[in-house]
Amino acid sequence: MKREVYQKQVEKALEMYEKAGIVLSETEKNSVEVVDWGLNQLDTMGLQIITYVNTERVCAKEMVLLPKQTCAEHKHVPTNGMAGKEETFRCRYGKCYLYVEGTGKKEDIHGYIPSSTVSVFHEIILNPGDQFTIMPETWHWFQAGEEGAVISEFSTRSTDETDVFTDKRLVRQTIIED
Amino acid sequence: MKREVYQKQVEKALEMYEKAGIVLSETEKNSVEVVDWGLNQLDTMGLQIITYVNTERVCAKEMVLLPKQTCAEHKHVPTNGMAGKEETFRCRYGKCYLYVEGTGKKEDIHGYIPSSTVSVFHEIILNPGDQFTIMPETWHWFQAGEEGAVISEFSTRSTDETDVFTDKRLVRQTIIED
Repeated sequence: MKREVYQKQVEKALEMYEKAGIVLSETEKNSVEVVDWGLNQLDTMGLQIITYVNTERVCAKEMVLLPKQTCAEHKHVPTNGMAGKEETFRCRYGKCYLYVEGTGKKEDIHGYIPSSTVSVFHEIILNPGDQFTIMPETWHWFQAGEEGAVISEFSTRSTDETDVFTDKRLVRQTIIED
Repeated sequence: MKREVYQKQVEKALEMYEKAGIVLSETEKNSVEVVDWGLNQLDTMGLQIITYVNTERVCAKEMVLLPKQTCAEHKHVPTNGMAGKEETFRCRYGKCYLYVEGTGKKEDIHGYIPSSTVSVFHEIILNPGDQFTIMPETWHWFQAGEEGAVISEFSTRSTDETDVFTDKRLVRQTIIED
């Protein structure tokens, strides 16, 4: 990802945090992670993240999906002898369409099918104040509505490097090119 | 605690969540926990809590300290074969004076000494956007400034029933009397 693309995306994310009334330190504002999985399609595929804390036992993040942006389908598998990551998403602002394993059908979803492969369609709609807990090793993907979404994540230790993606083209780590 | 006292305290807490821009579900608004440790001194000693999630591995709470209110000194010990609770406090609104074990001295603190016994005085001042991680078995107490404080807590499983208090008069569970 070119640095200018990264910077533009960070600015958009910071505007969303501000709309949601989330107060951030200067250090945090300078540490926004922009994930595009190497797809270079940030208008539709991407996720912006601030990690508040990530210890051996606990992790908390504040995530931003820009309007209509999608986080790619993935799951969290056992890592270093620990069970996979368990995470609760709590919507703070906007609207988030969350898809997990279950009985929901592709033709019934209110979101749109993104450009990267998805395989689960059990829909949970998160408005501000709504939340959902995703147990380890559960396939999931999520997408913002027209206004975007700010989502708090409360979880066990985050080990992004072992995330498994349905779309095998995807890479988790963002490399910023100067 | 008399139900009318409880209800009044819940209303005050809900006002604080609103000031902090925290969106809550109706279920959450009806589940605010008011802790007074049996002291019946809520103007100075108390804590209001909404628990978002508390599974075997992860807990998240949104806490309110009313103006000048103090949470009693306590620590989290190993429970059911698990290490004690590890918790990160993140200030969302107001100001929180947090006291933990360390080199800080009683005569140097910016808060006031509460009516229940305290023994640690290493001060961390949390303004909005600031946070601090408290490791298990660490004595700690905390107090709000003039405006009160809203504090997010990200932690391992919460087992309040095994909390240990410095002041042996205190009881963790609130019983509401009709």
